[in-house]
Amino acid sequence: MEETAPVGPWEAEAFVDYDRLVKIFGARPLTESEVKSLEKVAGGSHIMLRRRVFYSHRDLDVYLNMYEKGVRCSLYTGRGPSGSTHLGHILPWFFTKWLQDRLGLELFFQMTDDEKFWHDERLDISESNRYAYENILDLAAIGLDYRKTHIIIDSEDIAYLYPIAVRVAKKITFSTQRATFGFTDSTNIGLIFYPVLQISMSFLPSELYKEETYVLIPAGIDQDPYWRIARDIAPSLGYPKPSQIHNKLLPGLGPEGKMSSSKPETAIYTTDPPEVGAQKIIRAYTGGQPTVELQRKLGGNPDRCSVYKMYEMLFEEDDAKLLERYQNCRTGALLCGDCKAELASRVRRFLADFQRKREAARDKVELYLLRTKFELPKRNVRKLLQ
Amino acid sequence: MEETAPVGPWEAEAFVDYDRLVKIFGARPLTESEVKSLEKVAGGSHIMLRRRVFYSHRDLDVYLNMYEKGVRCSLYTGRGPSGSTHLGHILPWFFTKWLQDRLGLELFFQMTDDEKFWHDERLDISESNRYAYENILDLAAIGLDYRKTHIIIDSEDIAYLYPIAVRVAKKITFSTQRATFGFTDSTNIGLIFYPVLQISMSFLPSELYKEETYVLIPAGIDQDPYWRIARDIAPSLGYPKPSQIHNKLLPGLGPEGKMSSSKPETAIYTTDPPEVGAQKIIRAYTGGQPTVELQRKLGGNPDRCSVYKMYEMLFEEDDAKLLERYQNCRTGALLCGDCKAELASRVRRFLADFQRKREAARDKVELYLLRTKFELPKRNVRKLLQ
Repeated sequence: MEETAPVGPWEAEAFVDYDRLVKIFGARPLTESEVKSLEKVAGGSHIMLRRRVFYSHRDLDVYLNMYEKGVRCSLYTGRGPSGSTHLGHILPWFFTKWLQDRLGLELFFQMTDDEKFWHDERLDISESNRYAYENILDLAAIGLDYRKTHIIIDSEDIAYLYPIAVRVAKKITFSTQRATFGFTDSTNIGLIFYPVLQISMSFLPSELYKEETYVLIPAGIDQDPYWRIARDIAPSLGYPKPSQIHNKLLPGLGPEGKMSSSKPETAIYTTDPPEVGAQKIIRAYTGGQPTVELQRKLGGNPDRCSVYKMYEMLFEEDDAKLLERYQNCRTGALLCGDCKAELASRVRRFLADFQRKREAARDKVELYLLRTKFELPKRNVRKLLQ
Repeated sequence: MEETAPVGPWEAEAFVDYDRLVKIFGARPLTESEVKSLEKVAGGSHIMLRRRVFYSHRDLDVYLNMYEKGVRCSLYTGRGPSGSTHLGHILPWFFTKWLQDRLGLELFFQMTDDEKFWHDERLDISESNRYAYENILDLAAIGLDYRKTHIIIDSEDIAYLYPIAVRVAKKITFSTQRATFGFTDSTNIGLIFYPVLQISMSFLPSELYKEETYVLIPAGIDQDPYWRIARDIAPSLGYPKPSQIHNKLLPGLGPEGKMSSSKPETAIYTTDPPEVGAQKIIRAYTGGQPTVELQRKLGGNPDRCSVYKMYEMLFEEDDAKLLERYQNCRTGALLCGDCKAELASRVRRFLADFQRKREAARDKVELYLLRTKFELPKRNVRKLLQ
């Protein structure tokens, strides 16, 4: 899943004006009543929901309505396996696991090794393919249930997608594709074709279950352009429109921008040795003042602080404690050094625990592969020729 | 295989200036010495070769050289299964069978049901897919050996092609694709992607045999644009450049144009009842004079006659008899009615015989499918993750 959007500052900026984005993309901000509906169906709450880490959606209400009616529903998300995963990548997967557990949903997950190969001049397909398998360890460490998690690796499992892709590709013109993704004359044909596969994936559950299946996609809003096309063409192909719920991106540990593999020193990888992860936190850029004295006097700015965002989006479950931390930062009672030291210790523990689970999953990777669970339809040639 | 070429009159005209085409496309006309080389290797001659129905090539000499050296060689051609096949479609397959038999070559054959679906607004993929199987009966009736003929049906067998296609797609930009095939903004993404698959097919034998395999493609020169790109990118992907040998197109039975499904009354289908085929010949447009008297006086023009071309390209094996027919037409000794009556009777016999063989092949179709003979490579996931 490549991050593409026609809006400019999007790629670089993590402290984004999300209201503006919602307006540009035409998605709907998640209202209090919609959050309540989801919490009711889920029988509980999730920090990413009540803190609006997931903050906008398309047709979540329709999806929940279908779910409550007993119509078949599933989840779909994915990953572009161009390297090791960092916390920014796995953030939405925690919420996806929560949805899987609470709503009892099967998750279809796409590893786009083909797209990453097409996108990166220096990457070989054998590398992105290997990362696809490597990244499954992270999904397993998150705790996603292999009995309900079905992973497709594009370059190998294309036979599942292609019968859908053939029909999707006929519905999309080059001009639509270019307007949506900003392709140029020098774009390679792989990248031009790729959106067809990401769109097709949202229709795969209906094909595999041989019944109308509603799909909810938890993913960053940067992926929205794909689903806009998917939603446009779904009715003419006889599929329900996929619903989405969009998350904000985890900021990197530098002064600006989302957590990104292009700046590895500002990203915490799931494979970073715990002490390395902790050190990255200690060196993180904060919303604090230049000196302890000024901090005591003026207070910090948690709204522009990558360390505070880590607590808010991932590492502080307790709302009261989070609020206290916010206020203590604002008033200058809490100094960046102490705030970082505590986060560093949480990150250290998190990485050690995550890596134990990750290693334990090495012999379970195949259990997650869709191909080991779903058969391809077989043709009855004789009947066809009658 | 869609017929595409940037030259204008090409599609409509069958009595084409082939010398000009060779010049435009940059292929090489087949010389007497090259024909002799092929005949020597084949241990015999074929009417389509000595009459230059196959008339130009790229690197046929390189291919024969490799063949004689004992390097692995194979054949590749294909068909866009948008309907029943007519004599124009099967013409190159007779020559392909001759090559298969004489040189002991395996043939890889691509049924492009996806492309035909993308190309024709009214065609459903289920129809082009069904025609793919239906058309295999024609390949069987031609006499192609199923032990040495391996057919891919794009929409179902994509898993064999996609690992190659992924690498091919990265090598081709949209501007190359547009310049070669004349795509516009309203072209659907399927058609833009499709050339990647036809190109990839020429590298498949090397992958399946796991060794460098030289490929010779017998096909109409209208397919040449695909192979030009294939030849351009082959070295960078580590494959030999595919060689080609181009055939002229069989004229339709009307006053102009190649035999085409768009004018069914001027095309003889392999499924036409023998009497219907014979009647189409009787009604054919010829190079004769408006009246018997003028024909006797001025003679006919076999060079612009669809009936004569049928004899020349398919229905008269004997060179001496063909020459006699040509001269008797020129002098006015042979009247169109008699010439047609004899061809009609040959066509009637041909169709009856062909249809017997076609019916007998119904339970052998699966034997031709590549998927029933070649296994997809399997990943050793555990080894990959070490």
